[in-house]
Amino acid sequence: MKLASLKQGRDGKLVVVSKDLSKYVGAGDIAPTMQAALDDWENTEPKLVALYDALQNGDVEGSDFNPCECDAPLPRSYHWVDGSAYVTHVELVRKARGAELPPSFWEDPLVYMGASDAFIGPCDDIEAGSEEWGIDLEAEVAVITDDVPAGTKGEDAKKHIKLVSILNDVSLRNLIPAELGKQFGFYQSKPWTAFAPVFATPDELGDAWDGAKVHLPLHAILNGEKIGSPNAGIDMTFDFAELIEHCAKSRSLVAGTVIGSGTVSNKGSHDGSCCLAEVRCLETIADGKPTTPFMSFGDRVEIDMFDADGNTIFGRIDQKVVPFNEA
Amino acid sequence: MKLASLKQGRDGKLVVVSKDLSKYVGAGDIAPTMQAALDDWENTEPKLVALYDALQNGDVEGSDFNPCECDAPLPRSYHWVDGSAYVTHVELVRKARGAELPPSFWEDPLVYMGASDAFIGPCDDIEAGSEEWGIDLEAEVAVITDDVPAGTKGEDAKKHIKLVSILNDVSLRNLIPAELGKQFGFYQSKPWTAFAPVFATPDELGDAWDGAKVHLPLHAILNGEKIGSPNAGIDMTFDFAELIEHCAKSRSLVAGTVIGSGTVSNKGSHDGSCCLAEVRCLETIADGKPTTPFMSFGDRVEIDMFDADGNTIFGRIDQKVVPFNEA
Repeated sequence: MKLASLKQGRDGKLVVVSKDLSKYVGAGDIAPTMQAALDDWENTEPKLVALYDALQNGDVEGSDFNPCECDAPLPRSYHWVDGSAYVTHVELVRKARGAELPPSFWEDPLVYMGASDAFIGPCDDIEAGSEEWGIDLEAEVAVITDDVPAGTKGEDAKKHIKLVSILNDVSLRNLIPAELGKQFGFYQSKPWTAFAPVFATPDELGDAWDGAKVHLPLHAILNGEKIGSPNAGIDMTFDFAELIEHCAKSRSLVAGTVIGSGTVSNKGSHDGSCCLAEVRCLETIADGKPTTPFMSFGDRVEIDMFDADGNTIFGRIDQKVVPFNEA
Repeated sequence: MKLASLKQGRDGKLVVVSKDLSKYVGAGDIAPTMQAALDDWENTEPKLVALYDALQNGDVEGSDFNPCECDAPLPRSYHWVDGSAYVTHVELVRKARGAELPPSFWEDPLVYMGASDAFIGPCDDIEAGSEEWGIDLEAEVAVITDDVPAGTKGEDAKKHIKLVSILNDVSLRNLIPAELGKQFGFYQSKPWTAFAPVFATPDELGDAWDGAKVHLPLHAILNGEKIGSPNAGIDMTFDFAELIEHCAKSRSLVAGTVIGSGTVSNKGSHDGSCCLAEVRCLETIADGKPTTPFMSFGDRVEIDMFDADGNTIFGRIDQKVVPFNEA
């Protein structure tokens, strides 16, 4: 099943979208919004699946689906926690600045709380106050959970993964060092998070879903040129079940929690990178300094993931970078 | 005006509460929930104020108000950002471990993103997995904003403060050092945040509200003994307008954003402390080691703030510490 939220008010209008993303049908009779659906998932999911099946079978006539009429599938959430699960990426960033990776980073997941009120749609502009902030993309995979009790572990954690998607964790690289130096984590340096048009149930991934990871390349494109397409199933040091276990150690997580993988990255970066920071780190390690700049106003970012037949699974993130007040 | 949310479903039932917290009346005809009221504050506020006036005047008959039937006034929020605005406290914590305070800490606000899905009511138990986690309270003041555009500054920021309250930012001290060492900020170490029964409009504070600070002592009590009652208007290095400006630098903030002051603390701690960590730091500086333990299961925390006549303004936070699954 695939679900989206058409732009409408603060929480969007929940719709069911066909597998090929060509048609949609309103799901308002089942749940007005994605959050409402997730709040009562046990009851709403079977009804939404039935509507999806009807749309697929042609029993329901859908309307034409336009990804750019979409808000983030969950336009605002109560909890957004982003991991840094591809530790190979963290190691590379450290190597570029001549720092050692603490060995504990391979055993203890690194996560931060993100701005769950600052989600934006797949075609929404990335607004920034200044190009000097070092505007970067981060292409990631995310899962959305139902209610997760405190202390949930391992196999049990997997059962709480209800939906999957991809996202762009917009990062302001030049604001990061000062914030990390203060030890309280990211704040100004992690403003917006953009999502693909749809959330999909894990079964839509077929064999590419192993219960806790997505085994497919994630494509990141800047101004029409591929930056990278590392495989999200490779070198993910902590899978989504391990991230959930980490996040639910000291408290419960609410339905609609969004958990990000962090920038997808494969050791050696043979298929390129999912953020410009990694590209610049590779340049620094090779040549002593980076040559690829961060993004400028007018730049266009695209992020996508395809099934074995080359069809987009979640729809495409397709955004332009603009100054504040010109969005 | 004073507002509360009686426990009901995930978002509570919005009620207007009398100034003396003795009576309440349902506000469902105006907005079903606190978030719904904040989403449309321009329209809902005058109607809620009219209902409050009617309750105060006796034109509407209220029901008896029981603070322990309350959820957090905003039972779940889209954004919770907690400052560390009393830099004197941060300086003391550093001094106790023999570390220097970076001079920038006096000029650049320190904030972290908190778990806005993990708000609990004033009488809800504080659940923890282990006493070994170093369970502590942090008594703070908070403001709640309407929509704040990106780039909002100074005097403009003040206009976005719509409601004020007090809270207990539960902190797991023994989990903090490892998390801060990873530089990504707090996660497991900041589980629950408990709120007083009511949110109040700033006018309820009278002269104690200067537009960006609350000039009143905040009382923290453990097992019936006062820990401290520092004045929230003294030594607040960054007022709430400055915190809003900091938070809205790179993005907009959504209506219902909760901004915390951090542990209230006065230089010299003459009136005691608002958290056990500060008590222990003072002991360490004086005697080389702390003697006050963190909280144990069964301990009771109370937090309150009074007007000039000795009446509680927001109602009392009154919680017990319990193990998981015994709440």
